Amino acid sequence: MKETWATFGADLHLDLTDGHGRAALERALREAIQSGRLHPGTRLPSSRALAQDLSLARNTIVEAYGQLVAEGWLTAVTGSGTHVAERAAEVHPPITTAVPTRAPRFDLRPGFPDLTTFPRAAWLTAARRALNTAPYEALGYGDPRGRPELREALAAYLSRARGVRTDADRIVVCSGFAQALPLLCRVLAARGGTTIAIENYGHGSHRDAAVASGLRPAPVALDSHGVIASALGDADAALLTPAHQFPLGMALAAARRTQVAGWAAEQGAVIIEDDYDGEFRYDRQAIGAMQALAPNHIVYAGTASKTLAPGLRLAWLVLPAHLVDDVASAKSMADGNSSSLDQLTMAEFITSGAYDRHVRRCRLLYRRRRDRLVSQLHGRFPISGVSAGLHAVVELPRDWSEDGVVARAADRGLALRGLSSFAMGAADRGPALVIGYGTPPAHAYTSALARLVATLSM
Amino acid sequence: MKETWATFGADLHLDLTDGHGRAALERALREAIQSGRLHPGTRLPSSRALAQDLSLARNTIVEAYGQLVAEGWLTAVTGSGTHVAERAAEVHPPITTAVPTRAPRFDLRPGFPDLTTFPRAAWLTAARRALNTAPYEALGYGDPRGRPELREALAAYLSRARGVRTDADRIVVCSGFAQALPLLCRVLAARGGTTIAIENYGHGSHRDAAVASGLRPAPVALDSHGVIASALGDADAALLTPAHQFPLGMALAAARRTQVAGWAAEQGAVIIEDDYDGEFRYDRQAIGAMQALAPNHIVYAGTASKTLAPGLRLAWLVLPAHLVDDVASAKSMADGNSSSLDQLTMAEFITSGAYDRHVRRCRLLYRRRRDRLVSQLHGRFPISGVSAGLHAVVELPRDWSEDGVVARAADRGLALRGLSSFAMGAADRGPALVIGYGTPPAHAYTSALARLVATLSM
Repeated sequence: MKETWATFGADLHLDLTDGHGRAALERALREAIQSGRLHPGTRLPSSRALAQDLSLARNTIVEAYGQLVAEGWLTAVTGSGTHVAERAAEVHPPITTAVPTRAPRFDLRPGFPDLTTFPRAAWLTAARRALNTAPYEALGYGDPRGRPELREALAAYLSRARGVRTDADRIVVCSGFAQALPLLCRVLAARGGTTIAIENYGHGSHRDAAVASGLRPAPVALDSHGVIASALGDADAALLTPAHQFPLGMALAAARRTQVAGWAAEQGAVIIEDDYDGEFRYDRQAIGAMQALAPNHIVYAGTASKTLAPGLRLAWLVLPAHLVDDVASAKSMADGNSSSLDQLTMAEFITSGAYDRHVRRCRLLYRRRRDRLVSQLHGRFPISGVSAGLHAVVELPRDWSEDGVVARAADRGLALRGLSSFAMGAADRGPALVIGYGTPPAHAYTSALARLVATLSM
Repeated sequence: MKETWATFGADLHLDLTDGHGRAALERALREAIQSGRLHPGTRLPSSRALAQDLSLARNTIVEAYGQLVAEGWLTAVTGSGTHVAERAAEVHPPITTAVPTRAPRFDLRPGFPDLTTFPRAAWLTAARRALNTAPYEALGYGDPRGRPELREALAAYLSRARGVRTDADRIVVCSGFAQALPLLCRVLAARGGTTIAIENYGHGSHRDAAVASGLRPAPVALDSHGVIASALGDADAALLTPAHQFPLGMALAAARRTQVAGWAAEQGAVIIEDDYDGEFRYDRQAIGAMQALAPNHIVYAGTASKTLAPGLRLAWLVLPAHLVDDVASAKSMADGNSSSLDQLTMAEFITSGAYDRHVRRCRLLYRRRRDRLVSQLHGRFPISGVSAGLHAVVELPRDWSEDGVVARAADRGLALRGLSSFAMGAADRGPALVIGYGTPPAHAYTSALARLVATLSM
């Protein structure tokens, strides 16, 4: 380690602290040029002179100069020596990205599973088995629909657990529903679709994805039976959450399921069945996917984001036959295919039974959390929606302000989200909170609930 | 396990082989409705009658009917019994996707690493360490730029190994260059860019990605010093492979690097430096990334697809400060963020030194393969391009047909690719093969080379 000064016209400090010899010299020279301390056009000392200054072998200097010439930092012309190249000293401005907001101490906002439930050991076991047995070709560029191992595992699982009608050929694995939805919307727009019906309460990000993909979102009203089928009109597509409406929480009624499927068939429209939390139903056996009623018109969309973790970025589309090739092409253009290793691990996780075990464990956990929420609030604050999923709607007195409650909770370190923030058009519901009882880790749930109760008792 | 017949008007076969009781009955009824064997409108037998037929408890039948009503398969009206719903029997047409072409026995096409080199054990070790130490929030929805652990590791690695000027804030992790390029192009188009200069030999998929993202590709001629800077014209962007032109194999000459960086600064254009194989240089120290000459105008793009495996779907962009937010937004809209677990594993893989060890081992392996190719062909068939990367251009006599050679090789079970298939505009080079000596597994390389020599000796 050494720091030293060399004579470049004026003395120049070269910081050679991070290594010896040629590589350190190259770094120091680059740094001096980048920072502007060595100006464009400056003639460098001869290799002999610099070698003496730095107590380095002359050959080291010659090689370092040669490297920097090759990289464009220096120019060397026989007879006139080595100079700092023109245009080699662009200043590097500091970057100003938004400082991430600090996570709240307690969080009951919806849309997230309890991340502490992620079965790390079981996942690693599956990853080891998957990687040890993966064929070499699995490490290459692959089928844009995804690994056949995962599509086979999903076809069997979805048929068994969600009543989906499919085989592996109709499945396209995506990097989360966040990728699946815009891919689908782009395909529908490319086929001439212009309008997508969306439920009039939902995720703003879904509406935005539709808009960015070229479709006009048309919010459709919901009553206690779910989306009003007769209001779907002449939309080319509909994005629905039949098993458990997000965020309102009702299930699409039996008669409505048939009506909606019939609408799609008559209209030649495509329904996207967002089954984001279909595995979690607590009061009865889960209702099978609507997709099976009209597999030529309904795209089933599932995800590991709620059952395992959003960070896996794994979701799957079960497509009508006429959409498979176009969606696969769109996926191919978007990123080739999703990560092979994650897909192979997920396939092993499902076929080994670990996924079912994990889902059952989580179902019990979330069910208990929902029961505790209900027992603490019921009577004073009605809870609407079926007993399912990771969230519940807590209705507030008509004259309360959602924003006021959210602000009071924030003062107690509790993050909440009001229902009206999910309105896609006019907010036609009274004030309410969408409580994500799945969000906090187990050890924080009691305190989060206590803060919620205290906030509502003010 | 039982199969049985029940009386639904006519006798109906219900396949109850895959389970007992209610779930099996529900599946059998769904299947009968889906297949059309139970027609819409058909009145179902009473629960008492069916229970007798099937030797099941009456309550089982009642629950199964209730479930299928909830799912929309059946309708139940008090007083008129249970019927198969109208619109419940959509036929499920078979899917006809292209049968994947069988892999050739020997493959010397370029663009792939040897997949058998993937360090499975070391990767699993890194995955275990990464997952065991990952904070819970890493499993959630994340920063669209990618995990901070990986961006920090990449900033240090790229600075050290490729001379890139960056910090973690300027890096956006993508799911392969296949995702990174269209994201970037879309951002440039949204800012008013219309034209992207591309080298006139390259990947057709890159040109297609630019087109799909709204940019017009303008092929630029290459001479022995690489892309001709004065031909970049008034393009808004340029996609270049300075370290090792793909596929022709020359390095961008020192003077050209400075000219090109100067062009971008004067023009206000953005250069995308596709450093797809920059880790692999065999005849000299690798030339540092051009990005460092003009970090405000050059986007550096690196990938794990050639050093590790394409199936990881990991690539990274180092961005000028003014592009970071827009590219992060585009990534967020595309899929939220890339898989956390893969990113955390890659970060651990880099910081532990495993990545450097792996790259060194592969560098030696590929260098030997290149030497063997040269020694077997040189003299008769000139090999052009610098000694680097995973491919080399083998020039053929002017009067040979590339297609003829490729076809003769295919007869021997050897897949080859002609240079002209990479031409972006008019093919202005003589006949040649682009040999991917990195593609075959080690055990197959000798045979592949022998077949190549035999093909060229015909």
